[in-house]
Amino acid sequence: MKTYLDCIPCFFRQALEAARMTTSDQRIQQKVLEEVAKELTSIPLNSVPPEIGRRIHQIIRRVSDCPDPYRRIKQEYNSLALELYPKLKQRIQEEKDPLLTAVRLAIAGNIIDCGINTSFNLQEEIELILRQDFAVYDYPEFRRALKETEEILYLADNAGEIVFDRILIEQLQKKTICVVRDEPIINDATREDALYAGIDQVATIVSSGSDAPATLLHLASREFLKHFDQAKLIISKGQGNYEALSEAKRPIFFLLKAKCPVIARDLGCKTGDIILKRSQHNPAKSSALPRKSSQ
Amino acid sequence: MKTYLDCIPCFFRQALEAARMTTSDQRIQQKVLEEVAKELTSIPLNSVPPEIGRRIHQIIRRVSDCPDPYRRIKQEYNSLALELYPKLKQRIQEEKDPLLTAVRLAIAGNIIDCGINTSFNLQEEIELILRQDFAVYDYPEFRRALKETEEILYLADNAGEIVFDRILIEQLQKKTICVVRDEPIINDATREDALYAGIDQVATIVSSGSDAPATLLHLASREFLKHFDQAKLIISKGQGNYEALSEAKRPIFFLLKAKCPVIARDLGCKTGDIILKRSQHNPAKSSALPRKSSQ
Repeated sequence: MKTYLDCIPCFFRQALEAARMTTSDQRIQQKVLEEVAKELTSIPLNSVPPEIGRRIHQIIRRVSDCPDPYRRIKQEYNSLALELYPKLKQRIQEEKDPLLTAVRLAIAGNIIDCGINTSFNLQEEIELILRQDFAVYDYPEFRRALKETEEILYLADNAGEIVFDRILIEQLQKKTICVVRDEPIINDATREDALYAGIDQVATIVSSGSDAPATLLHLASREFLKHFDQAKLIISKGQGNYEALSEAKRPIFFLLKAKCPVIARDLGCKTGDIILKRSQHNPAKSSALPRKSSQ
Repeated sequence: MKTYLDCIPCFFRQALEAARMTTSDQRIQQKVLEEVAKELTSIPLNSVPPEIGRRIHQIIRRVSDCPDPYRRIKQEYNSLALELYPKLKQRIQEEKDPLLTAVRLAIAGNIIDCGINTSFNLQEEIELILRQDFAVYDYPEFRRALKETEEILYLADNAGEIVFDRILIEQLQKKTICVVRDEPIINDATREDALYAGIDQVATIVSSGSDAPATLLHLASREFLKHFDQAKLIISKGQGNYEALSEAKRPIFFLLKAKCPVIARDLGCKTGDIILKRSQHNPAKSSALPRKSSQ
């Protein structure tokens, strides 16, 4: 997905929010915004949003001299999500379709996205998404694709959220490779967050190879690209990964909550909608069966 | 009021919105944002927000080659407000305190502010503000100050809103000078809008002397400054005029709705609150009487 002009005010909002996490010195905060302003005049808008986001957050880290502004907030959400883990596991077993419930929970975890919002109620969000209808509901294809593979490439998104990913990975019962960012960027999950969430107990952790807040293929490591090219089923979490991979010709299922009007417009849905979307070039065939988006 | 860093993302949002009103050509819209980005790196943040707003909207007019992007929308709101005028006049007479009702209506009209939002429901807003409690309620001082003068300097704000200002001016029953912007800027009222609203029938129309979206004294005409320096009672409408004059040592009463979190923080109130505030250096004395903010 390309960057829309509407993303530009949002990049400034995000830069200011991140700068304020690193320092209370308004001169440094202002310097960050000035550097972002300079950078934005030289970035082509056919870049995908996470590419621009990556450069902006590089500026923030450089100007504020803080390598990981979101470190504390990431730890908080990792802990909070782990506290919820036992109850959520139990809840899954009580539902008629545990796999679909795990998918819903993985999407609920996607609310923990500091690129969009640092203020939300996780528990409320979980309850909402467990009841909410899907705006795009390629669940039948997803189930079918699952049956046809023993291996999954799982592209994680944020810290905290990764505990919810663990729940889905456990429910999938397949050999899974879980991909995290190579270095801290916004509140995205790194290897450290994955280990904290216990992902190593249920999957092999692999780095994306870059500090981009999404899976940007031109910055990815050879190791990652090998997995990506060979994967029979890829699960992609969150807006950033959708923005980066919406055109990729691979068998991807995107799981996300549409959290901003730009991505909602691109997906043809409303802000707040939940999505389980088969990629356009996904070889998994469409279902001829009627669909129900609730359990 | 100084410009806060939070204003910067908002300036970009506003610039994009205005650029889209002038053209559907995304290259021009992008050019506007690039020019705004360049400009913002050279503007000192101790400028008041309308000073920066003025420069941004100069860029929009220049890059898009459109002298008045909001012309159509201004005409729409002038017409809509004039349609409402007879009913609102009647309503005032039915209320216990017609003057306070006219003050409330003048604040309700302040929702017509395209610098903040181009989408709102005017009728709903009127009903809301007629019932809403004031967050700052210097009405007793306002009444007292009114009794002590026969002349008022009324600083208008937006087109459409100026019809509501006419209602208040009629209710005041004083000799009034009504100040409008010298040239089109956002949807601010100019002489043309004032004439359309029939302000010339109830007041003398004077220009502020500049195209700033507020009363910026260093850009004001000599004629305006003479009135400003001599006025015994100044009514200042809207956020822009508050931002520009909050420190001025003149007998001002600010009437506005706090429409953004930055101004709400400065006023010590919440976004959406309504304000009738005596200026800090206002010679009109404070009341020792208890206050009621509703009629």
